[in-house]
Amino acid sequence: MISKVKNAMSNLVGGMMPHGHHHHHNHHSGGGQNCGQEGLPHRFPYGRPDFLDLTPELLQYSTEHATRPVVTLKRGTRLPWGTGYAEAINAGKSMLNEDQASCEKLFVRKPSGKNRNSTVVDDNGDNTGIPLHFWGVFDGHAGSGAAIMASKLLHRIIRDGLGEICHLLENPNSAPPICLAKNGSPFQAEAKKGATQEAGEDPDAVSDASVRFYMEKVVSLESLVMGVIETAFKQMDDLIEREKTSYAISGGCCALAVIYLMGKLYVANAGDSRAIIIRNNEVIPMTNEFTPESERQRLQYLGFLRPALLGNEFTHIEFPRRIQHSELGKKMLYRDHTMTGWAYKTIVEDDLKFPLIYGEGKKARVMATIGVTRGLGDHDLKVYNSNIYIKPFLSCVPEVKVYNLDENKHGPDDVLVMGTDGLWDVTTDKEVAEAVSTYLSRCDPSDPMRYTLAAQELLMRSRGVLKERGWRLPNEKLGSGDDITVFVIPLAGHESET
Amino acid sequence: MISKVKNAMSNLVGGMMPHGHHHHHNHHSGGGQNCGQEGLPHRFPYGRPDFLDLTPELLQYSTEHATRPVVTLKRGTRLPWGTGYAEAINAGKSMLNEDQASCEKLFVRKPSGKNRNSTVVDDNGDNTGIPLHFWGVFDGHAGSGAAIMASKLLHRIIRDGLGEICHLLENPNSAPPICLAKNGSPFQAEAKKGATQEAGEDPDAVSDASVRFYMEKVVSLESLVMGVIETAFKQMDDLIEREKTSYAISGGCCALAVIYLMGKLYVANAGDSRAIIIRNNEVIPMTNEFTPESERQRLQYLGFLRPALLGNEFTHIEFPRRIQHSELGKKMLYRDHTMTGWAYKTIVEDDLKFPLIYGEGKKARVMATIGVTRGLGDHDLKVYNSNIYIKPFLSCVPEVKVYNLDENKHGPDDVLVMGTDGLWDVTTDKEVAEAVSTYLSRCDPSDPMRYTLAAQELLMRSRGVLKERGWRLPNEKLGSGDDITVFVIPLAGHESET
Repeated sequence: MISKVKNAMSNLVGGMMPHGHHHHHNHHSGGGQNCGQEGLPHRFPYGRPDFLDLTPELLQYSTEHATRPVVTLKRGTRLPWGTGYAEAINAGKSMLNEDQASCEKLFVRKPSGKNRNSTVVDDNGDNTGIPLHFWGVFDGHAGSGAAIMASKLLHRIIRDGLGEICHLLENPNSAPPICLAKNGSPFQAEAKKGATQEAGEDPDAVSDASVRFYMEKVVSLESLVMGVIETAFKQMDDLIEREKTSYAISGGCCALAVIYLMGKLYVANAGDSRAIIIRNNEVIPMTNEFTPESERQRLQYLGFLRPALLGNEFTHIEFPRRIQHSELGKKMLYRDHTMTGWAYKTIVEDDLKFPLIYGEGKKARVMATIGVTRGLGDHDLKVYNSNIYIKPFLSCVPEVKVYNLDENKHGPDDVLVMGTDGLWDVTTDKEVAEAVSTYLSRCDPSDPMRYTLAAQELLMRSRGVLKERGWRLPNEKLGSGDDITVFVIPLAGHESET
Repeated sequence: MISKVKNAMSNLVGGMMPHGHHHHHNHHSGGGQNCGQEGLPHRFPYGRPDFLDLTPELLQYSTEHATRPVVTLKRGTRLPWGTGYAEAINAGKSMLNEDQASCEKLFVRKPSGKNRNSTVVDDNGDNTGIPLHFWGVFDGHAGSGAAIMASKLLHRIIRDGLGEICHLLENPNSAPPICLAKNGSPFQAEAKKGATQEAGEDPDAVSDASVRFYMEKVVSLESLVMGVIETAFKQMDDLIEREKTSYAISGGCCALAVIYLMGKLYVANAGDSRAIIIRNNEVIPMTNEFTPESERQRLQYLGFLRPALLGNEFTHIEFPRRIQHSELGKKMLYRDHTMTGWAYKTIVEDDLKFPLIYGEGKKARVMATIGVTRGLGDHDLKVYNSNIYIKPFLSCVPEVKVYNLDENKHGPDDVLVMGTDGLWDVTTDKEVAEAVSTYLSRCDPSDPMRYTLAAQELLMRSRGVLKERGWRLPNEKLGSGDDITVFVIPLAGHESET
C-alpha cells in the first residue's frame, strides 16, 4: 500500500504525462507538445487544489479511475463566501485529473517598489486594500502543466493589473481619465487653439480638429476592470510561453474565472467550461462556449486571410464530409467564413485538402487536433506528424460578462455554478438549476457544508455510478467520463464576509 | 411648372448626383466614388418603386425637401399579401431620395436552357413553379445607382439561385444530398473498401477513412435556402462591380430583404436597416445592425492581419479620442481586436495615426468615411484624398434569420415592419410596436389600405412636422432628417393569397 502510494506519488509529483495518454480534446498523442521539455524541471508539482489539503494517501485515492471518488472540502474547512466545491477524476482517459481549480481572497493595492514587476508575490497576510475574490476552473489537455500554472498565478496577475488602476478604483464616482502622464496622474493635452490657426491650414480642418479633440468616449470603470481581466489572460499565456524555455509546462487548458470586485461579478471564459447564475430557480447563462463549431467563422477567416497557417494541408472551406478524389468536378455542399447556410460548389483539387474545421458537436476539431478554440498554453501544439502549429487559431482571450451583484437581492439558495465541460456535457443548465434548487431547499440553511453538498450532488449527477456497462446515469444514459470540477458559489455569500 | 418638372426630370431620369451632395454615411464628398463613370450610361434610370406608379408630377412632388410629402400606395393598388408601404424624402442632405424598395411575387422553376445565366429575365406571366415573395429596402449612400440596381435585380438573383435547387425544394421531406453529379443528380462516391486495403497503408488509416466517409453532417433544406440568399448578395455585389465597367452605378446601399418561401420567412440584412415582427403586441427583432461599433472587432482584426489595407494612414487600435503629438510617451486608454474592455498603453509614434474605427453611435465611421459596414456597391469608395479603398472592410454578406410562419398563428394585427434607419433612428422597437398595434386595432379590419395607413403612421412619427426649428416630433425632439422607407407586412397576409 505504502509502496504503491510512493510509486504513484513519484509520478504525481513529477507531473509528467505518460506518453500516449491524451485528453479527449486531442485526437493525437500531443504532436510536438512536449518537444524540448524533456529534462526540464516542472514549474509547479502536480497536485490537487491547496484548499483540499489532501494527504498523500487521499491524493492517491483521488486518482482511482475505477471508483472515481468524489473529492470535496473537508468538513470544518471553509472557503471564502462559504463556496462549495467537488471534483472527480476521469474514467481513464488520462492518468491524472487534468482539471485544476482555485479559490482565493486577495487585496488590490497600489504597486509598491518592492513587488512591482513580480506576479508571484503573495499577500503575506497584509489585508489592506480593496478586497478581491477569485474562483477559477482550468480544464487541462495534453498534460497538466498549463492548468496547474494558471491555477497558481492567474488570480495574482489580475490582482496586480487591478493594482495598476487602484487609484481609479478608489474614486469609483469619477470617470477614468482617457490619458495618464507617465507618473500615472491624469493628463490632458492642450487644445492648441493658437496653433490650429496657422496660415495654410484649411479652416474646416481647424474646427474639425477641435471637434475631434473634444469628442471623447466616456469609458466606464467597469470596462477598465474588463480590460484588466482580458489583458491578464494574455499575460498569463505569454508567461507560460516564456517560462517554457526554463520549465516543463505541458499542454494547455480552458480557463473560466469569476472575479468579485466592488459589488460586481466578472465572469471571464476562454474555452468550453461554463458558468450559470441560478436566481429564484431561474437560469442566467454567464458564459458562451468557444468550440470549433461556435468559432468556425473566426477560424475560417484567419485561414482565409493567412493561408500559410494552413500549411498546404488544410482548406479553410467547410464540407459536410471528406471529399474523395473520384468526386473531383462534382458539386458538393460547402460553407466559407462568410456563410451560415450551405451552397453547392464544384469540387476542385484544393478542396481535397482536410477541412480546417471538421466533425460535429463534441467531436468537432480544429485541424483534426483540438476540440476547443480558446484557452491558455498549447504553444508547442502541432498537427500530428506535421510542422503546422495550432496556436494561431487558438485564442487566449476570454469573453467577459458582468453581473451586478449589489443591484440584485439574493436568498441563500441563489448561486453561481461554474464547472468544467465534464459537468455540462451530460447535464443541462435547467437540470443543474433544478437539482441545486431542490437540494438546497431540503438542506439545513445553517449547515456550512450545504454548498459543497450541492456541488457533490451535481457532480454525482454527471458522473453517474459504475455498472457493468460503464458509468451510467439514473436514466441509463452514459455519464461523463471526463474530469469533473464544480464550484457552487452562494450569491449572498459575500454578506457573511467581513 | 411644366418646365420646372422637365428640368427636374432630366436630372431625375439622368440619376446623377450633383457633385458635393452626399449622404450622412459619408463624411466627405464621395472621394473617388464616381471616378471613371463620367459619360457612361446609367444602368437603370432614377425613379421611385414601380409599384407606386408615380406620374412625373408626383415624382417631382415627392422630392420636395421643404414639405417631405409622405408617398404611399394609391388607393386601389394592392401589393402581394396586402402589404402596406410609405416613404418620404430626406430633409435636404441629398437632392434625391436614395432609399429604394421592391415588393415582388415570383415563381421558382428549374432553370431552362433559354434563361440560364441570365438574371434579368422576368416571369412574363408564367405562374408555374414554387411561389416566392420578396420585400426589399435599399438605403443608398453617395448616389442612388447601387440601391436602384439592387431593387431591380436582387429578387431575381435569389429566384434563380433557388431555381438551381428547385428539385430539392420539390422534395422537402428528403434531406438534400451532400454531393451532386454534374447533371445535378445526387452522387455518392464508392467507399473503395478494396482500395484502402492496399499494401503500405496504415491499418488505422483504413478505419479512419471509412469513419470519415460515413461521418456526414445532415444539412437542412432551410440552410440551403439561407446559402442561396447569402450567395445572392455576393452575386449582386459582383454584378454591380462588373457592370460598373459599362455603366455609371453610383454609391452603395444597405440591403434588407425578406423572402417568403414554403412556409418560412427569411430575413436577410446587410447594413443598418431593421426588421421586427410584432405578434400579440410583442416584439421579435429579426435583424442586427452592422455598424462600425457593432463590427469593430471584425474590422480591427482585418486591419491587424492585413495592415497594408490601412495604407500607413490608419491604426487598427481604437482610442477614446484622437491623440496629440505632445502625448507621445504618455499612457492612453485603448482597445484592440481582442478586447471589449479598455486598458492603458504607452503611446508610440504609430498610435498617432487615425483610428480605423472612430466616433460614437450614428457618428461612428470606418476610416473617417462610412457609417455602415455591410451593404452592396461602394467598389470605388476611397478615403478622402487618398488611395485607400474602403471596400475590403465593407462586407456584402447578410445575416439571415428564419421565422417559421406556418408554425405560428397570426391575427390581422400581427405584422413584420421593415424600414431604413430613418425610421428607427428616432423611434424604438417598442414605440413602433405600440403605434402599429394601436393604429391597426382602431382601423376597419376590412379596409385594404390599413397596412399602408399603418406604414404612413409610422413614417409620420419618425419624420415629425416642420416647425420653425426643423422637423420636430410631438415631444419636441428632432425628427429624422433622413430618407425614410417602411413596409408593413401582415403575417396573416399570405392566407388571403392564392
